[in-house]
Amino acid sequence: MHQPDQSLWINARLATCDAANPAPYGALEGHALWLKEGRIHAVLPQAQALQAFGQAGSVHDAQGRWLTPGLVDCHTHLVYGGNRAAEWEKRLTGVPYQQIAAEGGGIISTVRATRSLDEDELALASLPRLKALMKEGVTTVEIKSGYGLTLADELKQLRAARRLAAALPVEVATTLLSAHALPPEYAGQADAYIDHVCHTIVPAAAAEGLAEAVDVFCEGVGFSPAQTRRVFDAARAHGLQLKGHVEQLSNLHGAALVAECGGLSADHIEYLDDAGVAAMAQAGTVAVLLPGAYYFLRETQKPPVDKLRAAGVAMAVSTDLNPGTSPFASIRLAMNQACVLFGLTPEEALLGATRHAAQALGRGHSHGKLAAGYVADLLLWDIEHPAEIVYGLGTNPLKQRVFRGVVQSIE
Amino acid sequence: MHQPDQSLWINARLATCDAANPAPYGALEGHALWLKEGRIHAVLPQAQALQAFGQAGSVHDAQGRWLTPGLVDCHTHLVYGGNRAAEWEKRLTGVPYQQIAAEGGGIISTVRATRSLDEDELALASLPRLKALMKEGVTTVEIKSGYGLTLADELKQLRAARRLAAALPVEVATTLLSAHALPPEYAGQADAYIDHVCHTIVPAAAAEGLAEAVDVFCEGVGFSPAQTRRVFDAARAHGLQLKGHVEQLSNLHGAALVAECGGLSADHIEYLDDAGVAAMAQAGTVAVLLPGAYYFLRETQKPPVDKLRAAGVAMAVSTDLNPGTSPFASIRLAMNQACVLFGLTPEEALLGATRHAAQALGRGHSHGKLAAGYVADLLLWDIEHPAEIVYGLGTNPLKQRVFRGVVQSIE
Ligand SMILES: [Zn+2]
Ligand SMILES: [Zn+2]
Repeated sequence: MHQPDQSLWINARLATCDAANPAPYGALEGHALWLKEGRIHAVLPQAQALQAFGQAGSVHDAQGRWLTPGLVDCHTHLVYGGNRAAEWEKRLTGVPYQQIAAEGGGIISTVRATRSLDEDELALASLPRLKALMKEGVTTVEIKSGYGLTLADELKQLRAARRLAAALPVEVATTLLSAHALPPEYAGQADAYIDHVCHTIVPAAAAEGLAEAVDVFCEGVGFSPAQTRRVFDAARAHGLQLKGHVEQLSNLHGAALVAECGGLSADHIEYLDDAGVAAMAQAGTVAVLLPGAYYFLRETQKPPVDKLRAAGVAMAVSTDLNPGTSPFASIRLAMNQACVLFGLTPEEALLGATRHAAQALGRGHSHGKLAAGYVADLLLWDIEHPAEIVYGLGTNPLKQRVFRGVVQSIE
Repeated sequence: MHQPDQSLWINARLATCDAANPAPYGALEGHALWLKEGRIHAVLPQAQALQAFGQAGSVHDAQGRWLTPGLVDCHTHLVYGGNRAAEWEKRLTGVPYQQIAAEGGGIISTVRATRSLDEDELALASLPRLKALMKEGVTTVEIKSGYGLTLADELKQLRAARRLAAALPVEVATTLLSAHALPPEYAGQADAYIDHVCHTIVPAAAAEGLAEAVDVFCEGVGFSPAQTRRVFDAARAHGLQLKGHVEQLSNLHGAALVAECGGLSADHIEYLDDAGVAAMAQAGTVAVLLPGAYYFLRETQKPPVDKLRAAGVAMAVSTDLNPGTSPFASIRLAMNQACVLFGLTPEEALLGATRHAAQALGRGHSHGKLAAGYVADLLLWDIEHPAEIVYGLGTNPLKQRVFRGVVQSIE
């Protein structure tokens, strides 16, 4: 189906997710959405829109249904090989973590499986996960590397992500997460591995245009703040944006580091302290909440949602889709969990998967809102109230998915 | 597609869920499944099966994939009208429960919406929920009344459930739950309502063959143990089986009452005490765990899984799919939650949605196992290990769904 130049969406209730519209969800009634060449050309009172649009293209009648921006899943690790269900089963039957690790379990088992696949196989293995997200309404998704941990395997992961983007009607933002775990080849030599990341992997990914940003797992079991800063410095020198897996299991002040360096987002942040909240608020760093991992790891320390809200920090919500700690290819589950487990309102959850998620990907001026000039990625929902997007699971209330102005099949 | 008389499934790994096979999941390798006239005719070593089967019918090659019994969701309220997402949003934005109830929220809003629909409309409104369960592999589902709360509306709900069963390749077990909440017409007259249930609704449902069992919400905010016993007595007098919503929010010793009366299952049981566990073990009452409601209500008191396990009480896992406290049409989500939130093993979760769920519906001798004489409801999965059924969510690893021997499309 070729992309029509122009179309007009009428008789819709718009959840614009645009702060310019003060009603909950940025709701607008009686307005039409004029799409042109893959962008939102205008949001106008309907009568005016119909007159101005005339016969310029196709007219879609939403019949009173709600339209929202396309969903943005701003933190995933969905390109990987293998499966860790059997390892999880061992944990639940009481096998100690040390034994599982000794038997080759944990993140290193995913690294092994990911390395063993070529780029095609990796893309193919990841396809059902990406399709599952798209079926729920995701139109932009971030995909991280971090299971290759060699130059060749990290770039292979990013190329597989790009290949998926080329094959499907979805936008993919790629992030280099080479500093995800210490590869076995560098056991006991974390600084040497960080040298390799800074001097070889980051420059290569930047030179090939394979990543928009870097990310670092800054944690006792990951990399130190000093190592994180070195990766951030290398990334900035090569024009890449910054993101951080920080304060998930302890407080190393990683969020403040991300904020200080002008990073896009601090992700997880269960152990974020007041100084971290303040630093993020001042720098405009987005807080990416990942309730799937919190749920699956049976954590009890919640991110400081009340303080983030009070400080005006934008909160995004994402799946953290990954094979070990959040094996959930469902942004609607993540939104539901953000409300149930973290106390977000349904409106905050939806903004967290639209406007704020776009901001976490450096796309705050082009994605995540129904507003003039934004990409024409939109969703038509069979619902009476936007909270239903976040409420029930299992059924799919998505009626139509529009990517760059073109209606897609929801297979 | 008409039902073939006989078929043979070869090259499958069988998770029989049959305790006769001592391996985890009742696994059998090298065996074939012979289906005949909607039943499992035999489970035989493959070479022997191929020889005996000869040209008797079609041969399905599972290509090394896993086969399990069809899933059984043994506790749902999926036939209802309306939606309570907006009410949930109010709760999350801090509106007090009293105000929501005063504004007509809570279960009574579902009663109002359910009463306002006719049988056709009710079936149609419920169809997507049942289809969502079927798509995940559910082949038998229990559906309760309890949102009508008048003779006519309770029977209407049960008829709508039966109508769904007639329209789709799924078996529906209907349960009369008139003692779910006090209808507004009987405010302050709970005993008079129970009289009406015992003398009018139970006999009518039994006479029309519309219910297999009764269920009672035995709780401070529901009905007392004495009232529960009266409903149970009436039910037994009319040949109906017994189930109970018990010990969800407090301990009224409802599970022991169910056990004493020879009921099929005690459901929820977060507050079950040792005496209750012992009574259930002695009577063979199934413990139906409903982690969706536990999750959604942000409860902290967990059912005594370790004690149930130690006492040898069969544990079933179900969605409790309902519009207010568990709006999740996903048995795989419920199984995952049972592991993550309640500490079940993936094997226990799968048995909880097959063999033990069948037992909770009085179908322990005909459903929930891959064994000779059992219904030929089976699932073919694209997985390496049965734990994957319970592990990841969002993607659907179900490859084929077989109901009464016939391969169904997974739409
Ligand atoms: Zn992550
Ligand atoms: Zn229930």
